Amino acid sequence: MLKIGEIGWIEKDRPECGPRDAIVRPIALAPCTSDVHTVWEGAIGDRHNMILGHEAIGVVDEVGNEVKDFKPGDRVIVPAITPDWDSEAVERGFPSQSGGALGGWKFSNFKDGVFGEYFHVNLADNNLAILPEGMSLEAAVMIPDMLSTGFMGAENAAIEIGSTVAVLGIGAVGLCGVAGARLRGAGRIFAVGTRPKSVEVAKKYGATDIVSYKDGSTVDQILEATDGAGVDAVIISGGGPDIIIDALNIAKPGAKISNNNYYGSGLGEKDTIPLCRVGWGFGMAQKDIVTGLCPGGRVRMERLSDIVTHGRMDPSLMATHVYKGWDKLEEALLLMREKPRDLIKPVVLLE
Amino acid sequence: MLKIGEIGWIEKDRPECGPRDAIVRPIALAPCTSDVHTVWEGAIGDRHNMILGHEAIGVVDEVGNEVKDFKPGDRVIVPAITPDWDSEAVERGFPSQSGGALGGWKFSNFKDGVFGEYFHVNLADNNLAILPEGMSLEAAVMIPDMLSTGFMGAENAAIEIGSTVAVLGIGAVGLCGVAGARLRGAGRIFAVGTRPKSVEVAKKYGATDIVSYKDGSTVDQILEATDGAGVDAVIISGGGPDIIIDALNIAKPGAKISNNNYYGSGLGEKDTIPLCRVGWGFGMAQKDIVTGLCPGGRVRMERLSDIVTHGRMDPSLMATHVYKGWDKLEEALLLMREKPRDLIKPVVLLE
Amino acid sequence: MLKIGEIGWIEKDRPECGPRDAIVRPIALAPCTSDVHTVWEGAIGDRHNMILGHEAIGVVDEVGNEVKDFKPGDRVIVPAITPDWDSEAVERGFPSQSGGALGGWKFSNFKDGVFGEYFHVNLADNNLAILPEGMSLEAAVMIPDMLSTGFMGAENAAIEIGSTVAVLGIGAVGLCGVAGARLRGAGRIFAVGTRPKSVEVAKKYGATDIVSYKDGSTVDQILEATDGAGVDAVIISGGGPDIIIDALNIAKPGAKISNNNYYGSGLGEKDTIPLCRVGWGFGMAQKDIVTGLCPGGRVRMERLSDIVTHGRMDPSLMATHVYKGWDKLEEALLLMREKPRDLIKPVVLLE
Amino acid sequence: MLKIGEIGWIEKDRPECGPRDAIVRPIALAPCTSDVHTVWEGAIGDRHNMILGHEAIGVVDEVGNEVKDFKPGDRVIVPAITPDWDSEAVERGFPSQSGGALGGWKFSNFKDGVFGEYFHVNLADNNLAILPEGMSLEAAVMIPDMLSTGFMGAENAAIEIGSTVAVLGIGAVGLCGVAGARLRGAGRIFAVGTRPKSVEVAKKYGATDIVSYKDGSTVDQILEATDGAGVDAVIISGGGPDIIIDALNIAKPGAKISNNNYYGSGLGEKDTIPLCRVGWGFGMAQKDIVTGLCPGGRVRMERLSDIVTHGRMDPSLMATHVYKGWDKLEEALLLMREKPRDLIKPVVLLE
Repeated sequence: MLKIGEIGWIEKDRPECGPRDAIVRPIALAPCTSDVHTVWEGAIGDRHNMILGHEAIGVVDEVGNEVKDFKPGDRVIVPAITPDWDSEAVERGFPSQSGGALGGWKFSNFKDGVFGEYFHVNLADNNLAILPEGMSLEAAVMIPDMLSTGFMGAENAAIEIGSTVAVLGIGAVGLCGVAGARLRGAGRIFAVGTRPKSVEVAKKYGATDIVSYKDGSTVDQILEATDGAGVDAVIISGGGPDIIIDALNIAKPGAKISNNNYYGSGLGEKDTIPLCRVGWGFGMAQKDIVTGLCPGGRVRMERLSDIVTHGRMDPSLMATHVYKGWDKLEEALLLMREKPRDLIKPVVLLE
Repeated sequence: MLKIGEIGWIEKDRPECGPRDAIVRPIALAPCTSDVHTVWEGAIGDRHNMILGHEAIGVVDEVGNEVKDFKPGDRVIVPAITPDWDSEAVERGFPSQSGGALGGWKFSNFKDGVFGEYFHVNLADNNLAILPEGMSLEAAVMIPDMLSTGFMGAENAAIEIGSTVAVLGIGAVGLCGVAGARLRGAGRIFAVGTRPKSVEVAKKYGATDIVSYKDGSTVDQILEATDGAGVDAVIISGGGPDIIIDALNIAKPGAKISNNNYYGSGLGEKDTIPLCRVGWGFGMAQKDIVTGLCPGGRVRMERLSDIVTHGRMDPSLMATHVYKGWDKLEEALLLMREKPRDLIKPVVLLE
Repeated sequence: MLKIGEIGWIEKDRPECGPRDAIVRPIALAPCTSDVHTVWEGAIGDRHNMILGHEAIGVVDEVGNEVKDFKPGDRVIVPAITPDWDSEAVERGFPSQSGGALGGWKFSNFKDGVFGEYFHVNLADNNLAILPEGMSLEAAVMIPDMLSTGFMGAENAAIEIGSTVAVLGIGAVGLCGVAGARLRGAGRIFAVGTRPKSVEVAKKYGATDIVSYKDGSTVDQILEATDGAGVDAVIISGGGPDIIIDALNIAKPGAKISNNNYYGSGLGEKDTIPLCRVGWGFGMAQKDIVTGLCPGGRVRMERLSDIVTHGRMDPSLMATHVYKGWDKLEEALLLMREKPRDLIKPVVLLE
Repeated sequence: MLKIGEIGWIEKDRPECGPRDAIVRPIALAPCTSDVHTVWEGAIGDRHNMILGHEAIGVVDEVGNEVKDFKPGDRVIVPAITPDWDSEAVERGFPSQSGGALGGWKFSNFKDGVFGEYFHVNLADNNLAILPEGMSLEAAVMIPDMLSTGFMGAENAAIEIGSTVAVLGIGAVGLCGVAGARLRGAGRIFAVGTRPKSVEVAKKYGATDIVSYKDGSTVDQILEATDGAGVDAVIISGGGPDIIIDALNIAKPGAKISNNNYYGSGLGEKDTIPLCRVGWGFGMAQKDIVTGLCPGGRVRMERLSDIVTHGRMDPSLMATHVYKGWDKLEEALLLMREKPRDLIKPVVLLE
């Protein structure tokens, strides 16, 4: 990213490695919708000459002298979010917010991202995880953000065994919301979306009902399918600034609204995200709105890696477009911007 | 309430008592701001010839033949919210939502309220609690709604021992939010309000800092007082439809916004309650918005009664205006509408 | 059950139906290990001429005049635990303990069980659930106790997505513990047991590692397989009075020990269940011991039914021995006592 | 501590300060019962020439070059437990268990304690907290262990507003359990103990009922006082290896047993801590046993410090014996061993 609206290649010095840090060379990368937001919508504000990217699998190239568990040559999963684990927010229980709101998100936000020849990882022992032998790179590169964010949507939704869940939006994060809902024990799962490839994968990940806006109001369809009762939990992973209104209108009293959206823009002069007063039960129907930022760190990566290793879900189904070589990265990023109908997620392999 | 905007006395038949129900004669009553909303703002829609009121202490006059634990002559605390305990919402864990959103709220909503010579209580064994000997009626009549709702605000706020809490609004519910925050272990408590009597009681209930809009932006004042950090929890108990914006702007990442407001009106054509996109951390800063409706039922009343009995807080401090006799009830209700500056809560004693 | 150690058939009056109750005629039954405990070990104390059984699918024969949602002819799932939903324990949040410790367990404990021509169900609207069309009786009859209890073991274990879990004992409840662990998102699952049929089903339900005491200490095997770290959660569903010692010794600091055992006997004169002081971290290693009694009620049954309907797990794999007709019930019960190596669960179909 | 059973003064080199660490000079110290366990009972195993003590207020003497928030001369509260915040256990949510079971407990366990001229604190920015101006040293020195451990007992007990709580044992930790129960909203609080000074402080901290074993079985007394119902939560902070039996016998179904005891010895050859099978509801009455180790770290210390600053409780009431000067430290430690009846806690001031 050269500036808002403009991308290109840039020569930069190799980052320096602190005593507890690592320098990593990527071997698989995936562009993310939020990279698109960052560049073309300026969602996080202006950035100049910042390297993009926060989804990577890599090889450790260098470690600081206090790093104990990793050494050059180790193949590693790098979380999109790399908290400062020795920070106040961690003591309070919110690692993703270390150093301030969303402060755990460093790559392509506060510092250069992973789309470079080498990139810097803070607190290597706390933030890297060994890539298990035999795991495909296409699967592994979904772990740092897609699985971690998508599953978070389900984890925050207070799903109980047999709960009925609706997932609004089935891009890659939404698909992981579907898979996450199944992993937490959901019974019936409504997936709201229309793109054929996404629909196909949503079913494989556990969706029992596909709802398309082409068939009318999605709210009406879900209410009708549940005899007017609505659902026990809603996971938002798509839609515009007013999507919470739909979520509230399909939620039973007591249902949780779990937000996975990054709201890059709001409504009106005051830049707001609206709740519907009546659907929200006048603020008293226990339809709580729960939020989060992709959990990062080593333990998270190891646990998600175990999910893949033990066959609990197969992330490689989302890698619809696989490229090889650095020269394809720009194409992959532009693809993410264009979003052809058969795209879920592009991946670029570098070895 | 005769219709929206009009109150008066009306002759009605004594309610019938089902096998598990009770008929109760009030001995202490308190009008509530929501009665004012109901009559003069039509907040819950039109109601004709409906008896108002949901805050009462009474004497049992009659019980159904399946009632085991109460008998005529028992002096009882009657919760504002009387759930159908044998309902689906209870099995899901949300008694106040039994029978649909806010369905546990029956008095002066789905049926006649407590401002009558006799009133009906469903599921007596589950919803009534014995008034302890020696408890003053002025204190007791605050339990059914003020304490239960106000404390709920604190209970929903994920307060930990030593948390810093802000309470927005210090009417009677807000004051109980302050007391509730202290009861859950808050350290520093900001109380936002200006009415002198409320300020005085807020301090007695545990407020350490009083913030007045007269001294400038309350958001700025609280941020300044916390060196920019904000607070660990916010309890909303007052303000207009856009009060959540203030709440989000003073909340640390990870802080919970606990709503005690009944939003009788929203903003704009779409009737919405706005969140501020940036203050909310773009939907990712873990500033969750938690809601509820006054918990009801016998166990709740017994527990709150224990709080009063054991001197954990003194609700009678809120009874600023005490009247005697049925003929004073209208005056008390009108007082609640006028809100003179020395008013917290009027009480009408009937014996 | 005629008395401790003696079973037989007995003529009894048809039970009476209260206004909110139902009389149900069974169409599928399953004997439970706890029936065996009750009769031959006298685990719950002496009982005379009490009808056994608490796992049934049936047809509604009669309903009380206050029952709204069920009518004669409805095919229903009957939970093993039928709480008094309008009781104090429900208000406190513990339906299975309604009316005192384990008070929600009525069938073949406080009243006649389901192994009769007709049986009584309290609070029909709250405790029955419609049997979905197309669900096999062999699958359905596992829901009332096996699924509900087994899944509870996982629900109580604070499993997070990717947690490593050990399930001690793989009878039918333990197998449902395995399935429940997967439903809550476990990654690696150790199943401890040796019976070949159980091992086969454990793998289908999600076990990744089978541990047999025949290969040495199960504690040592699990510690070795986890490089000494131990597991994030332990579900106890088998073993003698000192099984918690094993559980503590394989638990990481912070891991939860979730107990599904019914301890029919203890150790020593004082009839105790021992914890190991050192393995427990001297009472400070956050290895909490969490317990429960099979959740009952309509919502639970409906949710578990959804799990089966949507193919999240197939309970019929556990129905290793299927009989037809009342005259086979005794044989099925005796089979449960003998436990041949290819048995998981016998089922008796009555239509 | 020279070896088990023997204490004395020893000359040691000043500890070295790592880049993120601090060297602190104590200005107030308190000996702890666990120091007594360590020396005279060998509870944590043999230790040679190890400096005792883990309760201190001090002045920073030196900081490493990566420390940002503290500088020499700062007066600080030093937590008894100083976790390695950048460790795997923290990522899992269990800081006190960092580096293995109880691994956050370093002072006088894995390294020299605070009873030295200078002592070493790991991760200064994460573990130290500024001593507020105006707070007395007698009050402050109770924060590092007594308040943090005692309050934890209440925090782990799932106390709700109005819960009835029993605290077994009212030494300093038990007294903080009483205060903690009040801080979490308990209504009625039973304090079990006999020492007159402790009884006096227990009442000031919120105990409503004092129970003495001299008046008969404490279990019987508490059951009688609650009409046989028992209590909603039990905090164990005293008693021998079989104290959990008492706790289970006074617990309602669903009540939590929160353990604050350090079990230095167990029963029988197998060194076990016994649960009573029947009182525990055969492992099914939802009487969960919850454990913990004193929470440490900077945020915890700051929050507890706020509790004192804002007058939520006054820890100085426990400082029954205040000494001045290093030469009194041995006397204070021996006093802790002897436990005269008017002792709660000795404090030694060093400036």
